[in-house]
Amino acid sequence: MAKEKPKRVAPELLKGFRDYPPQQQIAREAMIAKVRAAVELMGFLPLQTASVENAAILLGSHYNQDALKELFGFEGPDEVDMALRYEFTLSLARFVAADANLPVPFRRYQYGNVWRVDKPGPGRYREFMQFDIDIVGTQNLLADAEIIAAMVTTFERMNIKNFKVRYSNRKILNGLVSWAGIAPERGPDVMRVIDKLEKQGKEAVLKELGPGRIDASGDKITGLALSNSEISKLEQFLDFALLHSADPLGHAEEMLGGQESAKAGIDELRQISLLLDQMGVDKAKTSVDMTIVRGLGYYTGPVFETTLLDLPSYGSVFSGGRYDNLVDRFVGRSIPAVGSSIGLDRLLAALIELKAIELTSATSQVLVTVMDRDRLGDYLQIVQELRHAGIPCEIYSGDTKNLSKQVKYGDKVGIPFAVIAGSDEFAAGQVTIKNLAAGKKVASDTSDREEWLAAEGFQETIARAGLVEYLKGKLT
Amino acid sequence: MAKEKPKRVAPELLKGFRDYPPQQQIAREAMIAKVRAAVELMGFLPLQTASVENAAILLGSHYNQDALKELFGFEGPDEVDMALRYEFTLSLARFVAADANLPVPFRRYQYGNVWRVDKPGPGRYREFMQFDIDIVGTQNLLADAEIIAAMVTTFERMNIKNFKVRYSNRKILNGLVSWAGIAPERGPDVMRVIDKLEKQGKEAVLKELGPGRIDASGDKITGLALSNSEISKLEQFLDFALLHSADPLGHAEEMLGGQESAKAGIDELRQISLLLDQMGVDKAKTSVDMTIVRGLGYYTGPVFETTLLDLPSYGSVFSGGRYDNLVDRFVGRSIPAVGSSIGLDRLLAALIELKAIELTSATSQVLVTVMDRDRLGDYLQIVQELRHAGIPCEIYSGDTKNLSKQVKYGDKVGIPFAVIAGSDEFAAGQVTIKNLAAGKKVASDTSDREEWLAAEGFQETIARAGLVEYLKGKLT
Repeated sequence: MAKEKPKRVAPELLKGFRDYPPQQQIAREAMIAKVRAAVELMGFLPLQTASVENAAILLGSHYNQDALKELFGFEGPDEVDMALRYEFTLSLARFVAADANLPVPFRRYQYGNVWRVDKPGPGRYREFMQFDIDIVGTQNLLADAEIIAAMVTTFERMNIKNFKVRYSNRKILNGLVSWAGIAPERGPDVMRVIDKLEKQGKEAVLKELGPGRIDASGDKITGLALSNSEISKLEQFLDFALLHSADPLGHAEEMLGGQESAKAGIDELRQISLLLDQMGVDKAKTSVDMTIVRGLGYYTGPVFETTLLDLPSYGSVFSGGRYDNLVDRFVGRSIPAVGSSIGLDRLLAALIELKAIELTSATSQVLVTVMDRDRLGDYLQIVQELRHAGIPCEIYSGDTKNLSKQVKYGDKVGIPFAVIAGSDEFAAGQVTIKNLAAGKKVASDTSDREEWLAAEGFQETIARAGLVEYLKGKLT
Repeated sequence: MAKEKPKRVAPELLKGFRDYPPQQQIAREAMIAKVRAAVELMGFLPLQTASVENAAILLGSHYNQDALKELFGFEGPDEVDMALRYEFTLSLARFVAADANLPVPFRRYQYGNVWRVDKPGPGRYREFMQFDIDIVGTQNLLADAEIIAAMVTTFERMNIKNFKVRYSNRKILNGLVSWAGIAPERGPDVMRVIDKLEKQGKEAVLKELGPGRIDASGDKITGLALSNSEISKLEQFLDFALLHSADPLGHAEEMLGGQESAKAGIDELRQISLLLDQMGVDKAKTSVDMTIVRGLGYYTGPVFETTLLDLPSYGSVFSGGRYDNLVDRFVGRSIPAVGSSIGLDRLLAALIELKAIELTSATSQVLVTVMDRDRLGDYLQIVQELRHAGIPCEIYSGDTKNLSKQVKYGDKVGIPFAVIAGSDEFAAGQVTIKNLAAGKKVASDTSDREEWLAAEGFQETIARAGLVEYLKGKLT
């Protein structure tokens, strides 16, 4: 915008932001395609909402400037406070609230960037991609079961072998709070704390329920100051949850069955479990687990988490639950809903670590080199034929005339084949194909590689007329 | 974030922002898939850069707070000025500048949201999606020709029949400025004004080159105050450009061939035109056109625009050019580049107007209704079979037990088929299928429709065992 000649600017990203170079982005796109295919097969509909929302949508109308700074919030045009979304659920609630004619249940998915002003760190970014599925406008437990089934199907389609979706019910936990003699309004705090059971361990949770504790970085965490008798009842439940009993619902009923809410929650989980069976969901992939709580305040029923069993340190990578009151703030009546959310970028990091995703850095499968600029028409003819046959390819369009530099470009990008032809080849009706991908195995380190690229290894001279068929054969 | 119970909040979007409900989003995703397939076949690589950039990246280091407000700019965490990107090219330049080892030419595509603080209006939003292709790091005109070829291929793949990519060269226009006796530093201003030729007409342009003019909304537009002799020379060129001569390069050479820059520009366009022929690009889809200028200051060579011939009022929907100096601000040396950009959302609006895109509102092809909740296992078995056969479907997961309300839901969402079965059908080994899509034609208005949905029209009872095959046949 400024008219003056710009001074040199450092080509740097903002702290907590990142780029996705082709190799990462190809993998991300492939992952998104798989998730989309899985949920579209289940009839979920794509929705895209605005990335920037009125601050009151995200924070409630009582927000203040400090709260605004906890998001990427700012005063925008026309002096309106706005902020980048930090999740999709509030925008979904806004969308649903604004359309009284929306057919329900509304089965929607949404994916895209969300932004959070967290402290950046390894694997923690301020912009990252999330993929949500939700079913809005129904109390039917079929919806909860479909969400869990979708979570399982999605992971199966992504070639993740070793994972488990574990679920419990906030209603059981509400029953627990009442059984322990704790006032219901303290329920959300109690759940926020016992949600830390798996990560922090029982001792830390007990301390946080009572006087508080000092965390690993030396910070003081204020405790809930519950009484010893309250804490002792909660501890009974924690011990039971950590047992991972083969019949968690039977045991929960023994302990909490006298609480109406807990009883209702247990019955719901029994129904969901039956529905999952009837849906044909692999029994090994889901289980009721009383350690599952979810930290967020807005859940009202079943809650779900997904653990990668080979990478437990990633925590839950696909989580959600039922939230029957979230649309209230917009319409003043309850619209029940249930959903789940994947942190796509964290999952991608996990898939790469698990080698469950193939990393490729090129879209072109063939580089057509330009040995003789007078034959450009012939090279372009090859490009045209290959693309016509559906083979992604490119002509070398850089500045060097040096053939080995051209081949080196293709190799560096990760293009598996290079086509080489000069006047002699054209005269003889032939072309040479160098198999760069195959050569990777014999010469992978840089110094060997330079030499190898210049040599005539892994190349074949074939009839020009058979080029497309030859490459088709190699590429399938 | 605020802890207090939220007051009622109006479920409203910010001014200039929008949601994409499923029908729009399905069409958008289909469009993006086509563009991606077209450019990946040409070896373009996906890149995704951060949505938020340091203000200096987007505005240069001399930016001020007013300039920041012209973007969605704000002071973010750690007191750093940042802004939402308004295009991708500067982020691409940053990315290239930061990676000295990037293989060049770097053929990349990027799509995603960009944000502009324009005055919102019909079809003008503050958040919209753009799709860019660029080839960075080469002066080779093959790259310019590949960009034009990609523009043509992309549109052909999107079923757009009647379009034209028109191109010219900034070097010719630089030659024109010098031929007209105008100081070269005034060149960008002159081009910004004559870029308005098609939209505003010659008279408006001539006034703006001279004393200025009053625009349609009554605003005064300051003129460049060129001399009469300068304007008269420019007018000669405008008259020639508006002729749309069959041999524009020949004519340009007659007029401007004495100018070194113009001569070089004319030669480049001749080469590009030959390359496009050799690439097999349909001759009817491209032409050299001297009215093409592009308003932006940073172009240095060929410039391109694409017009939908049936919807000229949309202006150019896919535009770009060569910009050899944009990376300078980061690295202090020139990295040549050429690219083009589609405004996806405007193009989508055009495609809908042209009926070049099919609008569907459902992903599910089949709704399995729940007539008898005791048979849930049987309904879920059907769902499982259909999904296994690759047929997107859903079980009715809402709260009503009323069958006709369930069918009405499917109809409203746009699901083409409903499966209906009660105990009698199951006992007889049968199911009933209602063809909601076919029924659309006989009863499309709401009152007829309600009645029709309740009636038994367009339904067939078939053997349960043949269900999947039956639906497969109907859906292909």
